[in-house]
Amino acid sequence: MKIILAPDSFKGSMTATQVSKYMADSITEVYPQADIHALPVGDGGEGTMEALVNATNGSFHTASVTGPLGNHVTAQYGVLGDDTCVIEMAEASGLKHLTNDTLNAMTTTTYGTGELIYDALEKGYKKFILAIGGSATNDAGAGMLQALGAKLLDENGKDIAFGGGALQHIKQIDLSHFDTRIKHCEFIIATDVQNPLIGLDGASHVFGKQKGATEDNIKQLDDNLTHWANLVERSTHMRLHDLPGAGAAGGLGGAFKAFLPSHFEDGIQVVIKHTQLEQLLPNADLVITGEGKIDFQTFYGKTPMGIAKCAKQFDVPVIFIGGSIEVDIDQFDEVGVVSAFSLTDGPLSLAETLANSEKLIKKTTKNIIRTFFHNH
Amino acid sequence: MKIILAPDSFKGSMTATQVSKYMADSITEVYPQADIHALPVGDGGEGTMEALVNATNGSFHTASVTGPLGNHVTAQYGVLGDDTCVIEMAEASGLKHLTNDTLNAMTTTTYGTGELIYDALEKGYKKFILAIGGSATNDAGAGMLQALGAKLLDENGKDIAFGGGALQHIKQIDLSHFDTRIKHCEFIIATDVQNPLIGLDGASHVFGKQKGATEDNIKQLDDNLTHWANLVERSTHMRLHDLPGAGAAGGLGGAFKAFLPSHFEDGIQVVIKHTQLEQLLPNADLVITGEGKIDFQTFYGKTPMGIAKCAKQFDVPVIFIGGSIEVDIDQFDEVGVVSAFSLTDGPLSLAETLANSEKLIKKTTKNIIRTFFHNH
Repeated sequence: MKIILAPDSFKGSMTATQVSKYMADSITEVYPQADIHALPVGDGGEGTMEALVNATNGSFHTASVTGPLGNHVTAQYGVLGDDTCVIEMAEASGLKHLTNDTLNAMTTTTYGTGELIYDALEKGYKKFILAIGGSATNDAGAGMLQALGAKLLDENGKDIAFGGGALQHIKQIDLSHFDTRIKHCEFIIATDVQNPLIGLDGASHVFGKQKGATEDNIKQLDDNLTHWANLVERSTHMRLHDLPGAGAAGGLGGAFKAFLPSHFEDGIQVVIKHTQLEQLLPNADLVITGEGKIDFQTFYGKTPMGIAKCAKQFDVPVIFIGGSIEVDIDQFDEVGVVSAFSLTDGPLSLAETLANSEKLIKKTTKNIIRTFFHNH
Repeated sequence: MKIILAPDSFKGSMTATQVSKYMADSITEVYPQADIHALPVGDGGEGTMEALVNATNGSFHTASVTGPLGNHVTAQYGVLGDDTCVIEMAEASGLKHLTNDTLNAMTTTTYGTGELIYDALEKGYKKFILAIGGSATNDAGAGMLQALGAKLLDENGKDIAFGGGALQHIKQIDLSHFDTRIKHCEFIIATDVQNPLIGLDGASHVFGKQKGATEDNIKQLDDNLTHWANLVERSTHMRLHDLPGAGAAGGLGGAFKAFLPSHFEDGIQVVIKHTQLEQLLPNADLVITGEGKIDFQTFYGKTPMGIAKCAKQFDVPVIFIGGSIEVDIDQFDEVGVVSAFSLTDGPLSLAETLANSEKLIKKTTKNIIRTFFHNH
C-alpha cells in the first residue's frame, strides 16, 4: 500500500515535518511493508522551508544577517534537490525574533531577508521560492532592496534609516548599484495574501496592529507607503497602490513585484509543485493531511484543502487529522475527503492535547490506518 | 453491508439504547441501504433490562412496589420476545432511589424485588433474568424472600424488620408459605460478582461502604450475614459463607442460590444469548461496541470485550467507541478489534463531552463508517 503523508504544522505543538514523521512511525508499526511518502507541507508561512527541504531531501545553509530590529540573527535557508533556494522571510525578518515588548512596525526592517538572498546569489543560486508569512515588518521591502544594492536616499543624499517609519524621507530611488545578478534570477513568491499596498485593505491597516503599530503609527505607515508607491511608480511605472499582493509581508510583496523578476503563487500550489505530489499521487491508496484546526477556514486555500483538491484529480482518497474538527465531514465530500479525526483520545484540555501531541497523533494515525485498510 | 451496533451505556450521558440509536441514525445518513442491527447491551447492571427489551422488541410492565427504604416506588420489568422476564433489582431496590443522605445499609430491603417477581408470577411468567447490579441493600435477599412468602421469624415468632441490621434477630426460616410456583421457574442471575457472602471479601466489607455503612455497621452486617448463613445452612444444607456470588447485591445472590431454582451467568453472556448476537454475526461486516471509558478494566469481562470475543468466533471485525480511550489498540489484537476511537472532536472538558454526547457519537460513528467501508 502506498500512503502519502502531507500535513501542515499543528500550530503550537508540532511542525509539519514532525507530524509527518510521527504519522509515518505509527504506520510502519502497523504495516512495516507500507510504501510511505512523507511530504510535510505548508501554505507559504513559517515551516514551508523546512517542509520543502525535508520533502525533497534538500539541505540547509546558515547565514548571520540583520534581524528585524537591526541586531544580528542567525538564519537558515533551504536548497531543494533541484537547486531551488527556499527563503523564509521570517527566518531573518519575522515576528519570531521579537517579543510583545519589542514589536515595532515603525523601525523593523527586511534588510536581513535581502542579505539571505545575497548570500544565495554569492553561492550561485538563481531560482528562489520566497515564503513571506510571519513578517515583523512594514517597510515595503525597502530593507531587502538596500541589502541588494539599492540606494534609498533622503534630501541630503543619505541612506534612510531602517523601518517603515523612515520611508517618508526617501527622495530618490537609486538602482545604479542594484545587484545585476538579480535580473537573471526567478523569484516565486509563495503567498495567499491578496492585499494591496495602501488603503484600508492595505498592509498597514490590515497587518500593522499585529506588528505593534498604534492607530497613529498605522496612519503614518499608510501615508509612508503611499509616498513610497508614488516614488516607485515614477521610477518603474508600476502602480503598487492597488496591486493585489503588494501589501503582503508589510509591502515586501510590492518590492518583489516592482524590482525583482518574480511571480506570485498560492503557497500550497508552490509546495505541491516542488514536493512532486502530483507525480506521487497516481497509484497512491491514501493521502493523510491535516492541521491544528479543521474548521470553516480550511475551505479557503489552506493546506489540507489544497492537498485534497490535488488528490481528488487522481481520485485518491484523503483523510484529515486535526487537533480539533469543527466541521461536518459531509462538507468535504466534493473534494473526496473520506473522514476527519481529532487526535484527542478523550476529554482533554488544550494544554493536555498540546503536551501529548506526539503520542496522540501516533495513536490516531494508527487507528485510522487500521480502520481504512482493514477491507483493503 | 451488515452492521451490528452493540454498545454498553456511556455512564453519565447516554443509555446503551440511546448510543445504539444515535449510531444507527448516523450510519443511515451515510449508507441508507445499510442493514443495521441495534443491540444495545449491558453487563447485568442498570440498563440491562432496557437494552434487552429493545434488542428483542419486547415490552415493559410497571408495578408499584416497596422501595429500599420501605416507601412505595414505581418499578418496571421487561418481557422479552420469548416471554422471558427481565427484572432489574435496582428498579425496586437500587441506589438510584436514594440520595447520599438516605443511603442506609442497615435498613434497606430487597422486598420490592420480590414483589416484582411476584407480579410476574401472577401474570404467568416462568423464566427470569435477574440483573442485580446497583443494589442499595445488604439484607441477604431477606426482603425478597419475605415478599415471596417466606417467614423470617424472631424469638417471639414475629416477622423481623426490613434490612440487614435486623437479620441477627432471625430465629427461624419458615418456608411453609413460600410461593409454590417458584419451583417451576428458572432464574438466571446475570452478574459478574464473585464475592462470597461473608468475610473480608464478602458483601458487607466490599460493598457496604458505598451503600452508606459505617465501619461499625460493616462489622455488624458481616456478623448478621454470618448468622443468616448459619441458619440457611441448617435449613437447606447449603453453605453460603464462602460461595462465590453469594455476596452479590448485598447477599441477594445467596438467597437465589439457596432458595430459588437459579444459576449464575456472566452478565454479558446472558445479554449475548438473549439478543441473539451469535445468530446475527455470521455474515456481518462490522460490529461497533463501546462504553464510557475504554481502559484496562475493559479487558475483564465488561461489555465491549465480551462482544469482541463473541465476534471473534465469527471473524467479524470490531471497532470500539468510547468517551475516552486509555489503552493502546494493539492490546486488543487477539480479540480482533480493529481500532478504538474517542467521541471527542477536539480539546473538550468532560462536561462539554457529556453535554454534546449525542452530536459527538454521531460524528464519530460517521467518520468510522466512512473510513472502514471506503475500501469495502
